Amino acid sequence: MNADKIPDIIIGRLPVYLRALQRLAVTGVLTTSSQELGEMIGISAAQIRKDISQFGEFGKQGTGYSIPFLVERLRNILKVDRVWDVAIIGVGDIGHALARYNGFSNRGFQVSMVFDNDANKVGQKVGEFEIFSTAILLEKIKQHKIKVAILTVPASAAQEIADQLVKAGVKAILNYAPVSINVPDSVHVQYIDPVTHLQRMTYYL
Amino acid sequence: MNADKIPDIIIGRLPVYLRALQRLAVTGVLTTSSQELGEMIGISAAQIRKDISQFGEFGKQGTGYSIPFLVERLRNILKVDRVWDVAIIGVGDIGHALARYNGFSNRGFQVSMVFDNDANKVGQKVGEFEIFSTAILLEKIKQHKIKVAILTVPASAAQEIADQLVKAGVKAILNYAPVSINVPDSVHVQYIDPVTHLQRMTYYL
Repeated sequence: MNADKIPDIIIGRLPVYLRALQRLAVTGVLTTSSQELGEMIGISAAQIRKDISQFGEFGKQGTGYSIPFLVERLRNILKVDRVWDVAIIGVGDIGHALARYNGFSNRGFQVSMVFDNDANKVGQKVGEFEIFSTAILLEKIKQHKIKVAILTVPASAAQEIADQLVKAGVKAILNYAPVSINVPDSVHVQYIDPVTHLQRMTYYL
Repeated sequence: MNADKIPDIIIGRLPVYLRALQRLAVTGVLTTSSQELGEMIGISAAQIRKDISQFGEFGKQGTGYSIPFLVERLRNILKVDRVWDVAIIGVGDIGHALARYNGFSNRGFQVSMVFDNDANKVGQKVGEFEIFSTAILLEKIKQHKIKVAILTVPASAAQEIADQLVKAGVKAILNYAPVSINVPDSVHVQYIDPVTHLQRMTYYL
């Protein structure tokens, strides 16, 4: 196994496999097959087998996959067998929703800090977090060695905040601002923009 | 040009091109190059040229792309030169944020109906919308011929609501519930789950 050689498109499917396996696990099921998994997530069994085999031998013909074992391995591969602290920048509607979102736990992440540049919001609470000023973003994030950030600022502010996050040592940015941001190659960015997802579907309608 | 033959991965990049071009357009710029576009969005100029050339001749060597022309063509290709009514199902934090989101306008979509199954929410307002009961979802969506829905319900309710949406004639579902849903091949689904996006990045850290 050479992690560097595994295409990003395969890496992108692993969290979907993990999510489905964890849903099966909570029902108490101990084994599954690529067929069953495929039906759950709408990916072909052959594709699933091929993707998973990139990381070693996980299942035997006829007996299927051990769910606890595969969950453990996927969590390890995706590095979510630990808990990453996450900073949220921007407490508009979406930032607010994410700061209160209870879906991070058990999946490798916890919100640990929330920032906004609005003086009326700074010092207020969102969920259990005090909102910090973006003026102290660089210092705070550096100090707490936070590597993961969620950007929920307006498009016009996204690049400037991204630059600060990079300076502070952040290595992974989930960007909800509807604009592309430029970061060094060593920093990873994923985008969530509902409209691009919707447009990708209307093409087919 | 044969639309059926264009790989989905290319279609997925078109909304990103369109978004960048529209951002350039509002600044008053009239032409751009694949280089400039590529720097904005972090995709290689060669890839952009190749993708766009699938749909015809848009630029000339040396003169670049006409932004208004390319915007118009991409809007047409993605079928967002019209406005799609969107139903939101589930008025938790995320549904609430989306119902008030002002980023849909000019990009081909408008929220037109909002549903929840919570009797305490039904009849209340979110933004400008009265929250309808999911009990009348099928009837309302059918009646208004809504083809696009955003699913922001808990994972446990996602499949049941998806089934109703399909029955009501919805053809595109943007699913924020952290679970895969099964729909007929004629219905398109896109997923937004912040955790899968985060996990896709931590792999590389």
